Amino acid sequence: MANSCGAVLAWLEPPSEPSCGALAGLDFAVKDVFDVAGLPTQAGNPDFGRRWGVPQRDAWAVARLRQAGARLVAKTHTHELAYGVTGLNPHFGTPQNPRVPGGIPGGSSSGSAVAVAAGLVPVALGTDTAGSVRIPASLCGVFAYRPTHGAIPTQGVVPLAPSYDTVGLLAAEPGVMERCARVLLSEALPGVSFERAIILRDALELCTPEAQAAVERVALRLESSGLELEERSLGLLEEAREVQRVLQGAQAWGFHQEWLETAQPRLGEDVRRLFEMASRFTPGEIGRALGEQVRLRAEMGAWFLPGTLVLLPATPGSAPLVSELQEAEAALAFRWRALSLTCYASVLGTPVVSLPAELPGEKPIGVQLVGPWGSDVGLLHLAQRAFGLGPLG
Amino acid sequence: MANSCGAVLAWLEPPSEPSCGALAGLDFAVKDVFDVAGLPTQAGNPDFGRRWGVPQRDAWAVARLRQAGARLVAKTHTHELAYGVTGLNPHFGTPQNPRVPGGIPGGSSSGSAVAVAAGLVPVALGTDTAGSVRIPASLCGVFAYRPTHGAIPTQGVVPLAPSYDTVGLLAAEPGVMERCARVLLSEALPGVSFERAIILRDALELCTPEAQAAVERVALRLESSGLELEERSLGLLEEAREVQRVLQGAQAWGFHQEWLETAQPRLGEDVRRLFEMASRFTPGEIGRALGEQVRLRAEMGAWFLPGTLVLLPATPGSAPLVSELQEAEAALAFRWRALSLTCYASVLGTPVVSLPAELPGEKPIGVQLVGPWGSDVGLLHLAQRAFGLGPLG
Repeated sequence: MANSCGAVLAWLEPPSEPSCGALAGLDFAVKDVFDVAGLPTQAGNPDFGRRWGVPQRDAWAVARLRQAGARLVAKTHTHELAYGVTGLNPHFGTPQNPRVPGGIPGGSSSGSAVAVAAGLVPVALGTDTAGSVRIPASLCGVFAYRPTHGAIPTQGVVPLAPSYDTVGLLAAEPGVMERCARVLLSEALPGVSFERAIILRDALELCTPEAQAAVERVALRLESSGLELEERSLGLLEEAREVQRVLQGAQAWGFHQEWLETAQPRLGEDVRRLFEMASRFTPGEIGRALGEQVRLRAEMGAWFLPGTLVLLPATPGSAPLVSELQEAEAALAFRWRALSLTCYASVLGTPVVSLPAELPGEKPIGVQLVGPWGSDVGLLHLAQRAFGLGPLG
Repeated sequence: MANSCGAVLAWLEPPSEPSCGALAGLDFAVKDVFDVAGLPTQAGNPDFGRRWGVPQRDAWAVARLRQAGARLVAKTHTHELAYGVTGLNPHFGTPQNPRVPGGIPGGSSSGSAVAVAAGLVPVALGTDTAGSVRIPASLCGVFAYRPTHGAIPTQGVVPLAPSYDTVGLLAAEPGVMERCARVLLSEALPGVSFERAIILRDALELCTPEAQAAVERVALRLESSGLELEERSLGLLEEAREVQRVLQGAQAWGFHQEWLETAQPRLGEDVRRLFEMASRFTPGEIGRALGEQVRLRAEMGAWFLPGTLVLLPATPGSAPLVSELQEAEAALAFRWRALSLTCYASVLGTPVVSLPAELPGEKPIGVQLVGPWGSDVGLLHLAQRAFGLGPLG
């Protein structure tokens, strides 16, 4: 392929015989945290492959898409160990944002977002623990889907924090995303419809005017699709991020500790600092975060009723420049800012569709539609119905 | 009252005017981890009341039962801080098991179980984090109900480990338990019916012949109620207990740490050791337990389908003697043995009814019916229908 924008780690030879099934002939790419039989899974770290070994079997989601006739054509780059939201990778290089010259791709599903945004594939698999499909989708101008936690098996995927890890999708348009999601959603989730959309005022306050305007445009489109609009502050976004900082960190450290301590792998400075932070949590801090998560879920869940969806930007603004985030300090500051908008749904375990909502000619900026637990099918369908028609504005 | 078997911490003056509502005229008692307006909540520790203060409002569950016309007549003793399963309390004294001379009452809802078993009240509120209504109910020969996690608000209850804490019931017969539960279950949960019961073979292997025979009797009664029986090993009971040991410990430590370190309260030796254990967990251990819990839930949930219930003893045998468990060592050994049978449902967050299943004249022994997530109403109804008819055998 001509210009892959540095998204691709390895091209695959697709089978020559024609496929059949619900996704027959559809090309897809997969983030290099998914097992593909016979290829090393490196997860964005040059030493990780030796630890993980070469898998004999495809990850569940890869196998499922292939069984349905989709053709895997590439493995894509990822933020190191999926533990970062910028997509900057000091070992394998950073995929280029096709829509923002010099801009970060976002991460951790950086290569999958860029591969879709650059038109290499119509759809790609990513993972989303704290925002890892939503953030790069927002910054590269593509659609993304994070499922209800547990609704798509993560078997054969390198874990980051299992209590938040999900298998997600990035796609050029919502129709193909819905088709792939229906294949991946192992249980027949109920089709639900939405009656009202709540705009999170306190989320808007964390964002640029462009991101605020993007939410406004999405809200108007939803209103014209028959939803009632409402605006309110939640007041819990930073608490949710803090809970996830601790519980995600503890799980990431729990999974990687032995390898980090014995193999002494090379690590980017941002990731090294995150592990260092996590290794220092006390049992009291983690225990309190577990308790706090229960409280947040109860409080947020109390008004997150069937038929309701929540609207907030997917990132605080459009893509910053790679040159601005070279220092770990700056990368981590961006991390915490961005996660204030995405941890909300991760902590709840609820499904999210993120959709590109910039005006034509503007830098990409995504808006999240967060649905109640298990509302995946309805949410995907709404996205397809209300936003499959071309650009907003 | 003549002989309260040491169950009661304080008698209350019930209102003199007649009540009305779904539970009009029903007397109930409440474990001293629930707030009752104007009374100190001591949670089985003589220094805890100073930390917690005297509550101005009833706990949600207490208020709800009272609103429905039930009359609160007593606060009952608890294992210290609800962190123990024997019911032995070095500060307030140990309630006497009315059915086993010299036997432990079980805990932590010791006083509530004894109050019901001694006929002081037909029903009492308890809490169940890892088994705290099921274990004393089993050893004292009464019914118990642990709800789906989150289905009954825990507001106004002293926390132990919020991700497992539930408000439960202990009752002399299943009909009154179902009536109270319907008042407490804030959302209309669907009524479900059960088609098959799975006997957990590996749970039976941990138990006495009496407990095994009790399961057999319950299984036969279910079969004659139209359920198909099946037997299988789960193989995950000890993993579930281990996950809960870590995650419950971290949360208990997280909640109590500051108080323990600053106020230096008196503590029973068993509880002191549990906190000491919890304070030493590393972030890696806790992080791995979080990941392991996700794996267990997926693995156990995969075959725990609608219409299925799981059958296992509530305790490994009948009540040991108080004199056998005086040493912390022995008490903790009993703890881990007992929790192998109860943590299973706690880790899944699924509802359980425990029912007395001994032969007339035998020492009490309970059997757990564990239903899938959200099957509370169906489970309670089944218990009432199949076991409301008098003793088994």
